[in-house]
Amino acid sequence: MVVSESALRNFTGNIFLAMGCSTEHARLAADVLIRSDLRGIDSHGVARLTGYVRLWEKKRINTTPGIKIVHQTPTTATVDGDAGLGLVVAPFAMRLAMEKAEQYGSGWVSVRNSNHFGIAGYHALMAVEKDMIGFAMTNASPLVSPTYSSERLLGTNPICYAFPAGKYPPVVVDMATSAAANGKLEIAQRLGKQVPEGWIQGKDGKSTTDPHALKSGGALLPLGSDPEHGSHKGFGLSATVDILSAVLSGANYGPWVPPFVAFLDPPDDPVGAGIGHFVGAMRVDGFRPVDEFKTHLDNWIERFRSSATINPDQKVIIPGEPETAAEIYRKANGIPLVDAIVNDLNGLAEKFGLILIDH
Amino acid sequence: MVVSESALRNFTGNIFLAMGCSTEHARLAADVLIRSDLRGIDSHGVARLTGYVRLWEKKRINTTPGIKIVHQTPTTATVDGDAGLGLVVAPFAMRLAMEKAEQYGSGWVSVRNSNHFGIAGYHALMAVEKDMIGFAMTNASPLVSPTYSSERLLGTNPICYAFPAGKYPPVVVDMATSAAANGKLEIAQRLGKQVPEGWIQGKDGKSTTDPHALKSGGALLPLGSDPEHGSHKGFGLSATVDILSAVLSGANYGPWVPPFVAFLDPPDDPVGAGIGHFVGAMRVDGFRPVDEFKTHLDNWIERFRSSATINPDQKVIIPGEPETAAEIYRKANGIPLVDAIVNDLNGLAEKFGLILIDH
Repeated sequence: MVVSESALRNFTGNIFLAMGCSTEHARLAADVLIRSDLRGIDSHGVARLTGYVRLWEKKRINTTPGIKIVHQTPTTATVDGDAGLGLVVAPFAMRLAMEKAEQYGSGWVSVRNSNHFGIAGYHALMAVEKDMIGFAMTNASPLVSPTYSSERLLGTNPICYAFPAGKYPPVVVDMATSAAANGKLEIAQRLGKQVPEGWIQGKDGKSTTDPHALKSGGALLPLGSDPEHGSHKGFGLSATVDILSAVLSGANYGPWVPPFVAFLDPPDDPVGAGIGHFVGAMRVDGFRPVDEFKTHLDNWIERFRSSATINPDQKVIIPGEPETAAEIYRKANGIPLVDAIVNDLNGLAEKFGLILIDH
Repeated sequence: MVVSESALRNFTGNIFLAMGCSTEHARLAADVLIRSDLRGIDSHGVARLTGYVRLWEKKRINTTPGIKIVHQTPTTATVDGDAGLGLVVAPFAMRLAMEKAEQYGSGWVSVRNSNHFGIAGYHALMAVEKDMIGFAMTNASPLVSPTYSSERLLGTNPICYAFPAGKYPPVVVDMATSAAANGKLEIAQRLGKQVPEGWIQGKDGKSTTDPHALKSGGALLPLGSDPEHGSHKGFGLSATVDILSAVLSGANYGPWVPPFVAFLDPPDDPVGAGIGHFVGAMRVDGFRPVDEFKTHLDNWIERFRSSATINPDQKVIIPGEPETAAEIYRKANGIPLVDAIVNDLNGLAEKFGLILIDH
């Protein structure tokens, strides 16, 4: 089924409204999810909508949060999300970071007591629209083992850096710090296929190619996969995300991060409040004139894109380029939804007395 | 040969003095190199000294630089290193970032017209001493191919994040964004051994285990090694370092970065000045009280260090822990130097009419 952007946006906004969000919050939360679907990151768009609803039903998401700045300096702040949707808390934090950057050159906000914030790229790209460099990261429920560990202690803890270019789309590095995303495992599970070595380990910590290993006590591996290939670096990056997002803000970190799935309860010995994010913005013209920066970033893009390639039919991919291409295509042609997601959304429609109409 | 810290520091400082550095710069440059040797990062310590001397002989390093702030806002700045040693230019930039952080909460400095800055950890740790979070990164001569490319377009572009803990040593994530460091290839070359798949590719872009492939037109691979294991993420991180360090400051980027080795000339069509760095500092108490942060970071460290392990004899390693242990040991017991380095240093001693005395 293919649904137009506007129909899916409308439906999604109305679900959030039915959950008790204000109109403004419902619009914003829908915008974050729809942008993910537009950009081809199907795992983080409306596919997550039932997940948010279930957390709300469990009273783990507050749809009328009093989001507060609890501490600040001219260029730093800590925000308490009051258990709100990360989809609205993170944009609040990013706007604050941008206001600080507008005034002082840069702004940095650590966030506690939040929930899943969608794609990191959404938040970082807010800054790019104002000729700023955007940063966004979040911790997440533990699915990844540090190097040498058989325990799940870290989330897939994504990092995003976004840079405004001139005649080209922004460069957007938006990546989980694990070797493979959970979504790729789910695809392999559905197809009954094995996964490559280096994505996951079994309960005993041994490498495995069984995509179901994660569900039976195994773990995802950090970027780098094994010590010989630098998995301690993926672990280090993931640790950095955890510390900036949660140790700095007063959120839960490591194995204490509450699970996204509603059927698992949060740990009963929390070390902080909710999950944590860290966002930031730096004005490009705090360093050099914007047009100079953009001209050179365009030159950077051209040089890398035209690089000699290993295979003639596979060019070098500039970070963010496939997502921009998807966004243009899907805005024009609609958003494809697999049957499982259509069923999920129809279930929500029924629950809230709404309808999902395709175009 | 084992040399005491003080003897090696003295010798190294005198070499920089003989190159024309001021006493202050000679002390500082020696401090950066010796700290690398103390922390067990032998590839970036006095092992590089002959490299700096050769670049100076080629007039590519200016030992009496007029380091200048060319642009700034309250929390951002661009510094021109006047072709000075990165070993003195980067600490200048870091002090500036820390002054801004002291006043406004955070400070960020992009640097152009510099040279190799030693270990990123040195600069990031300057901030930690003042209860700030430290960031340091640099671009470097092209040795790494982006995913799908057969060209070398990026350096090993290291990133460092450093965090002050309470009763434990700081957490220091200091990592090249390539799968393996060049130093590891050199060891394999000396021993006549093959290297693992996933470290390098040959001139044709095909994976190889021949450690000499890098010298015959091959390239190091980004962290993640291949597309299936997330090499586009390593590429994205390396691109981020290149953009923040050079596109933002006006340094050379990508394939235009001048080589560290003096026998290769810099490209004759530069896109900027020298190599670039990016450093930053954020006051911990810009987000939450320092003692709260440190208590929670200690708790984080304890939880990760005591994690269940795959093998009983290999605990989880907290980032920075092995380097701190090396620093304590080598301060007490001296710095071991392999014969090749001793020969290098004796060659320098002869050139400048100095002596290297062991303890």
